[in-house]
Amino acid sequence: MLSVEEAQEKIFLQISPMGAEKVPLSSALGRILSEEIVSSLDHPPWDNSAMDGYAVIASDTRGASHATPLRLTVIETIPAGALPQKKIIPGTASKIMTGAPLPAGADAIIKAEDTHPIGQEVEIYAEGDADFIRRRGEVMQKGNLILKKGVRIRPYEVAILASLGLSEIAVFKRPQVAILSTGNELCDLCEPKGPHQIYNSNSYGLMAQVVEVGGIPIPLGIAKDTRSDLITKLEAASEADFILISGGVSVGDYDFVKEVFSEKGKGGGMAFWRIAMKPGKPLAFGLVFGKPTWGLPGNPVSAMVTFDQCVRPALLVAQGALNRFLPVVQAELMENIQKEAGRRHYIRARLYIQGGRYCVAPTGDQDSANLLSFVEANAYIVIPEGEVQVKAGSQVNVQIIGAIGQDQGLSP
Amino acid sequence: MLSVEEAQEKIFLQISPMGAEKVPLSSALGRILSEEIVSSLDHPPWDNSAMDGYAVIASDTRGASHATPLRLTVIETIPAGALPQKKIIPGTASKIMTGAPLPAGADAIIKAEDTHPIGQEVEIYAEGDADFIRRRGEVMQKGNLILKKGVRIRPYEVAILASLGLSEIAVFKRPQVAILSTGNELCDLCEPKGPHQIYNSNSYGLMAQVVEVGGIPIPLGIAKDTRSDLITKLEAASEADFILISGGVSVGDYDFVKEVFSEKGKGGGMAFWRIAMKPGKPLAFGLVFGKPTWGLPGNPVSAMVTFDQCVRPALLVAQGALNRFLPVVQAELMENIQKEAGRRHYIRARLYIQGGRYCVAPTGDQDSANLLSFVEANAYIVIPEGEVQVKAGSQVNVQIIGAIGQDQGLSP
Repeated sequence: MLSVEEAQEKIFLQISPMGAEKVPLSSALGRILSEEIVSSLDHPPWDNSAMDGYAVIASDTRGASHATPLRLTVIETIPAGALPQKKIIPGTASKIMTGAPLPAGADAIIKAEDTHPIGQEVEIYAEGDADFIRRRGEVMQKGNLILKKGVRIRPYEVAILASLGLSEIAVFKRPQVAILSTGNELCDLCEPKGPHQIYNSNSYGLMAQVVEVGGIPIPLGIAKDTRSDLITKLEAASEADFILISGGVSVGDYDFVKEVFSEKGKGGGMAFWRIAMKPGKPLAFGLVFGKPTWGLPGNPVSAMVTFDQCVRPALLVAQGALNRFLPVVQAELMENIQKEAGRRHYIRARLYIQGGRYCVAPTGDQDSANLLSFVEANAYIVIPEGEVQVKAGSQVNVQIIGAIGQDQGLSP
Repeated sequence: MLSVEEAQEKIFLQISPMGAEKVPLSSALGRILSEEIVSSLDHPPWDNSAMDGYAVIASDTRGASHATPLRLTVIETIPAGALPQKKIIPGTASKIMTGAPLPAGADAIIKAEDTHPIGQEVEIYAEGDADFIRRRGEVMQKGNLILKKGVRIRPYEVAILASLGLSEIAVFKRPQVAILSTGNELCDLCEPKGPHQIYNSNSYGLMAQVVEVGGIPIPLGIAKDTRSDLITKLEAASEADFILISGGVSVGDYDFVKEVFSEKGKGGGMAFWRIAMKPGKPLAFGLVFGKPTWGLPGNPVSAMVTFDQCVRPALLVAQGALNRFLPVVQAELMENIQKEAGRRHYIRARLYIQGGRYCVAPTGDQDSANLLSFVEANAYIVIPEGEVQVKAGSQVNVQIIGAIGQDQGLSP
């Protein structure tokens, strides 16, 4: 069986990057930059004051203190957004607001707290300080590389892009992902549930996972456990970039998904259908209609875990993202874990902080049909293939999948 | 001056929880549950097989092994989604698929790998195992509390809600947040920039911060540094639940924002206007038009940091979220930090993992006008008010504001 990394590599080989599109800055949050951002301007655009105060000639103010105040004639007030009209000459000063351009002649600022206005003059109690001047181009200069291609746009990047005057941003397109659940036992939420049915949860969970990683889900509904219904339902995936099918990939009599990879895969076929992970051994990947297609397990926990490990990174690669994988930290395991050798285990778990250290504990029953193991989980404990027992107190690797609650957090 | 916690407490006092609304499950991702979710059903709904295999009577199979195989007559095949028609009696078995209901009479499963079909019979090489039966109600029972009020809906919760058959979900409404930038020097992205102007970045950054925490931004544009323009622009905030104003809260001649709190605050007024943090000392909070209103600093870094510390938690309180604060971890500081005593510092920083431990380093120039300190930053280092020097190698508290890149991560 393939390791998770071997499977990821085989998947990445089939992923082409999406094209780029321009979006308004106000819609760019969460998208991935498709080109590097180079500054088209100097910032600040002019020398300006970092303080409310007075613009002066430093040599004019030497020796000024509360004990030995000096006086200067105020020739102008410069608000932010105004252009100074007058040049500072010895014996004069201009009142200046934070961010306002430095007037000609001035080479220092005295902050307002160190001054006292007296009619047309100002008494100063400190020497002028050149450090209170923000220099043109101090933050960035025309031609500087500001943001790298592949960066995910957070609010901070939105502000930076706005400060560059960019109202439209080039980002990678969002991949369209068709999602099909299979199984005669499945009932959709809008239908009355028969006595022998369960609700289709995989379609909804996978749609949300696709949205969260930046994709656009295309729901294809539920296919019955027949070859013909499966193929009919998949016809609707023609617009999609990728296809997810859950269920029907195991060794049962009604597991037709594997056959679809060869039957309809013009120029396609199956890359693999088993992977050394738990939950999730029956995970198929290949091409259907020439499109990268995952045959995910039908058990709801297995479907979501295999998405996180083998679909999510691929959708991020398609979007050109620099970061493809879930963040990993080390934590102290709070209880013994036993497993069989051979597969890597992804155990739903609660990661919390105690005494400044990460601790992690499984969230109860790990049966792959039991979605409730996700309720308190904000992490996967990752136990390597070869391990059969990990003792409480060991350091283990943990992937983060949710917020670390402040209840267990440190107060700042 | 108030501490950050004292300011947060004064703010929380003015925040009323938003009302609830029903949304389709497919739109529920990221929203906050406004009621607890109790199961309306047993899951699984019936005893069923956890394996593809054969349903048998355990006592019928005693002693079966590869050395001593036994034979049973196969009376039925039960796919998932079907109701078993026949009762298992001694000497018989039914072929059964994963998830299919257990037939009457059966009390154990033999997995397919331990069997071999021979005509109408099956040869079995293992004893039937009751552990391969998933019992009715094993995952959840009618009446069980499944999800708490205040939980943020992740993809995992979406799947759980679907498995309960819930197509509509009650969530807290998204707060509407009016956003106004002030300053004669500001130019909007859609306007030609004058030689004495800089682009308005605060409105865009704050809009994105509001969206990311679940709010709906209402952009009010830019107000000039006059009392009348400020008040005119604020009239458009009548639909909003909250108001953010950036700039105009300091001690300059054109800082009118503080006056607005008293002037237009019918039943309102200013709760505070200074806070012991850096960046961000000039942070005002109070009521304008009876609505909770923040006067954020005009410097772009200060505006975003004070949002993260004093607005974000309030918007989460308004949405009834259990988690209000940024996650905090401890990390080893990689360089010396010096500061003045008196204010708590929030230093933009890069948090990474080395040798299984968190390390953190400031991202260069920390000037509050320099947004580029956010580019590589995924964290704030929090240095307490009283500290003046923190040495490299010390453990410091760190708030997480971005993904921890896998480049520095551990391979799982």
